[in-house]
Amino acid sequence: MQMRALPIENATFPVICAPLVARTRASLVEETLAVSAKKPGLLEWRVDFFDGIANSADVIETLAAIRDSAKGIPILFTRRSSSEGGERIALDEPQVIAMYRAVCESKLAAMVDYEMSNAPAHVAQVREMSAACGVKLVLSFHDFDKTPDAQFLASRFALAQQLGADVAKIAVMPGDMIDVLALLAATLEANQSLEIPVVSMVMGSLGAVTRLCGWTFGSAMTFAVGQSSSAPGQMPIEEIAAGIAMLKRAR
Amino acid sequence: MQMRALPIENATFPVICAPLVARTRASLVEETLAVSAKKPGLLEWRVDFFDGIANSADVIETLAAIRDSAKGIPILFTRRSSSEGGERIALDEPQVIAMYRAVCESKLAAMVDYEMSNAPAHVAQVREMSAACGVKLVLSFHDFDKTPDAQFLASRFALAQQLGADVAKIAVMPGDMIDVLALLAATLEANQSLEIPVVSMVMGSLGAVTRLCGWTFGSAMTFAVGQSSSAPGQMPIEEIAAGIAMLKRAR
Repeated sequence: MQMRALPIENATFPVICAPLVARTRASLVEETLAVSAKKPGLLEWRVDFFDGIANSADVIETLAAIRDSAKGIPILFTRRSSSEGGERIALDEPQVIAMYRAVCESKLAAMVDYEMSNAPAHVAQVREMSAACGVKLVLSFHDFDKTPDAQFLASRFALAQQLGADVAKIAVMPGDMIDVLALLAATLEANQSLEIPVVSMVMGSLGAVTRLCGWTFGSAMTFAVGQSSSAPGQMPIEEIAAGIAMLKRAR
Repeated sequence: MQMRALPIENATFPVICAPLVARTRASLVEETLAVSAKKPGLLEWRVDFFDGIANSADVIETLAAIRDSAKGIPILFTRRSSSEGGERIALDEPQVIAMYRAVCESKLAAMVDYEMSNAPAHVAQVREMSAACGVKLVLSFHDFDKTPDAQFLASRFALAQQLGADVAKIAVMPGDMIDVLALLAATLEANQSLEIPVVSMVMGSLGAVTRLCGWTFGSAMTFAVGQSSSAPGQMPIEEIAAGIAMLKRAR
């Protein structure tokens, strides 16, 4: 089975990504220092938690401060929309797009994440500006209420590729363990049928197994907690790293 | 989701079972002491590895010696047939049945494992003698060449219950990760449709994930290495225990 690694420097398979969710520049720098010490392969700045999100200059300066504290670990810049599990923010979507443009032009982030359910014109804009700046694009789909069936999940992975994503990501909430199998089956299928890396996880307690083992079904990245979690079910970096190493020894 | 624990004293969910595969009584005692120190929940004596298997008195005395060294950990007695992955032995099946009878009557083992693919009359005899002695019966199915489809796997779990098993066990060899999903789906389904605990694993490197996470899909037992492995893909007890504990904290 071919497994496609994330398009970042020195990407392992899978990459362990740790979220940064502090609200101020000073606390983000502290969080970055603490989390980077645990050596994740990627840091995701969840800018929707940031108090200064409405000021693009503040965002860029803070991103630079995070990068200066990140010990060379690449950064994934993400505004998660409130409809897909993010914090409420004071920006409308054109303002969000302007922020993404400033971030891409700064070249401080290796990747940006944008939801594929946003307006097609906005997705196209983010794709165009990130490509122009050499920044990789994750197109993502989240369902915090349920797990859609495997056919729908497969269609979301395929849509991400069709929209020009460099990485396709899906995160869902399960009702039972059958949902966990559906997500893993869709991940395996997408890994074989698509040409871009795929990332997937089932959230919550039932989904914990996917955060540890999803990579064996083709998921190129797993989120783990450095200091604070950004979604339900995330486990500590040290534990995820140990679990992955254990499975790799057995394989 | 209801998860049925193994019918042994103080059974955790899942039980970690460590195989004993030494060839002589003295080395089995040493192996039992070393493995018991790692605190598995069950010890499986794979008697097909034992040099003295042809002498029932030797088998019973050795079983007693194992039990004396097992620090109270219950014992699963198993002759794995060579057609399902075991060692070649010098006994014909009636002699094997006689050995199982002696073991059941000794009450030194908490459980015995017998393949459901054996002659129906032999399965019935082992069921009858174990029940009469209060010894629990695992009826098992192994395929070291492939993973049958999910429908066939489901039929093997159901057959075990139909034949009167206290526990149904399936172990298969995968060709790809789709086979791993098939086994997990069949395990989940059997856990919901049957009334006895089910145990399952996918062997080899691709199946390692099932040894660590199969319990989240309903498998009541996982095999892990104390000193020597008895099947491909088994991981060390300490690692399996740490991985299960990590997943339980996340759940």
